[in-house]
Amino acid sequence: MTKEELLEALEQFDSEDLTTALKAAEASRKTRRQGAYFLQNFFEETRVQGDERGTEITMPITPLVMNPGHMAHGGVIAFLCDNAMGMASFMEKQRPGVTMDLTVRYHKPLRGSFATARGEVVSSGSRINSTRCECRDETGTLVATATGSFYHFR
Amino acid sequence: MTKEELLEALEQFDSEDLTTALKAAEASRKTRRQGAYFLQNFFEETRVQGDERGTEITMPITPLVMNPGHMAHGGVIAFLCDNAMGMASFMEKQRPGVTMDLTVRYHKPLRGSFATARGEVVSSGSRINSTRCECRDETGTLVATATGSFYHFR
Amino acid sequence: MTKEELLEALEQFDSEDLTTALKAAEASRKTRRQGAYFLQNFFEETRVQGDERGTEITMPITPLVMNPGHMAHGGVIAFLCDNAMGMASFMEKQRPGVTMDLTVRYHKPLRGSFATARGEVVSSGSRINSTRCECRDETGTLVATATGSFYHFR
Amino acid sequence: MTKEELLEALEQFDSEDLTTALKAAEASRKTRRQGAYFLQNFFEETRVQGDERGTEITMPITPLVMNPGHMAHGGVIAFLCDNAMGMASFMEKQRPGVTMDLTVRYHKPLRGSFATARGEVVSSGSRINSTRCECRDETGTLVATATGSFYHFR
Repeated sequence: MTKEELLEALEQFDSEDLTTALKAAEASRKTRRQGAYFLQNFFEETRVQGDERGTEITMPITPLVMNPGHMAHGGVIAFLCDNAMGMASFMEKQRPGVTMDLTVRYHKPLRGSFATARGEVVSSGSRINSTRCECRDETGTLVATATGSFYHFR
Repeated sequence: MTKEELLEALEQFDSEDLTTALKAAEASRKTRRQGAYFLQNFFEETRVQGDERGTEITMPITPLVMNPGHMAHGGVIAFLCDNAMGMASFMEKQRPGVTMDLTVRYHKPLRGSFATARGEVVSSGSRINSTRCECRDETGTLVATATGSFYHFR
Repeated sequence: MTKEELLEALEQFDSEDLTTALKAAEASRKTRRQGAYFLQNFFEETRVQGDERGTEITMPITPLVMNPGHMAHGGVIAFLCDNAMGMASFMEKQRPGVTMDLTVRYHKPLRGSFATARGEVVSSGSRINSTRCECRDETGTLVATATGSFYHFR
Repeated sequence: MTKEELLEALEQFDSEDLTTALKAAEASRKTRRQGAYFLQNFFEETRVQGDERGTEITMPITPLVMNPGHMAHGGVIAFLCDNAMGMASFMEKQRPGVTMDLTVRYHKPLRGSFATARGEVVSSGSRINSTRCECRDETGTLVATATGSFYHFR
């Protein structure tokens, strides 16, 4: 579709839908211009800490990431924990890696306006790092914990 | 923002961004009209099977769900497996449940045009179901496996 | 202690204790003579199948492996599953490996006279195998499932 | 077998085997007299701490619990972590519970003369507790981490 056709199609939607559409357009443009990848930008993940002690990432909890129970979808929490642990592992190894496995335990429903996941490296090998993560809501309540292992190519 | 302001803002984007924006608008409208929740519609999950033997869900693999390595993000695979297992657990129990924990093991990069996750109940208790899931790419190659437990309120 | 002192000490025990002692002595001798390791012999693990499709190991459920609830201790089930998956991984790779991680899900109490664990390789990499395991009681009821990954040195 | 027959049978063994046999006899008698269960006594687990902050258990690493690689068997480490977390969960709930699931990650070979596992409750529900555990060798090196959930009947 041409740009004109796309805009014409968008005119048919309510402002609620267009608000979401605008977010998606912004995330798409940010990805093209600044790198990273679409979902990280669309979910508005922000790294608030990243040093040798660990990585902390926040994410707003909006209807975009909720399940029918009006709490954050478990898969989104898994996504956030994966990113916090993967980034912690990358910071420790200083080279790219891939998730080998991921275990998430859900303790409480995640509601409120944002979540913070803090990942850290528990044990570091030559290729494989073992990590853990705590995910808290805006009041500091622990809503999920995760562990994961990451493989870093030489 | 009013609808007019939103449309005006959208005019500033490239057609690539607007293609994504249109997808988001459609998912938003579908969620309002038909229920479910935004990400399920935005990720275009489709249930291709759902009976006593298990639940199978497919999801297109587009740049929207990729990580910087141009493969499906591990968190998205976790999301898909969570949904396939959660739906299988719901079908068996016939009442809503929540994910208690989730373990995903990533075997191969997930590329290609779509993925299929098949969840099934391994063991059924009065409140808690234990499930497993196989996630395959479009060629049928096993790219990830998962297990999870789900709590169903009485 | 000398052999005589040991026998003298053993004389102080009841026949129930000596029955256990005799089992331990036999497992110790078998380990010295035939290899493997003590617990495998003491727990009387028997490999009933081992081919390219998987490895099946049985273990008698006696008071030796029970917890206070008179069912098999969860740690013993983890031990059994670890062995079934480790052996399956060894058979596939044809070289020694070590357990990287292990997840066991307990579905039902394990009672009865024996248990059977069947391990199989789910995905095989150059160094790392991903495996899964089903553990059943003597009636064939699924009492636990497990997954694990194994690292095989080159 | 009668006590005399058992002692006669034991005479046929080397002193190394009888040393193990004596340990087993002692663990058997201790179990009859003081409760707990056989393996806990045979593995000589000792609780060195147990309060609201967590439970710490030590276990000597002897040939009895080693695998062919002369390090502690992964299943034994799982057993130890299960006990430390289960005890921590019991202390918090003050009523018996059962292990629902267990994930153990092995970071380094466990050698040396003893291991210490420290379990603590991460999140407490009305029936289900989520726990984690760190297992260290005699030098304090982290050799394994574990997580688990425990179900406590009302």
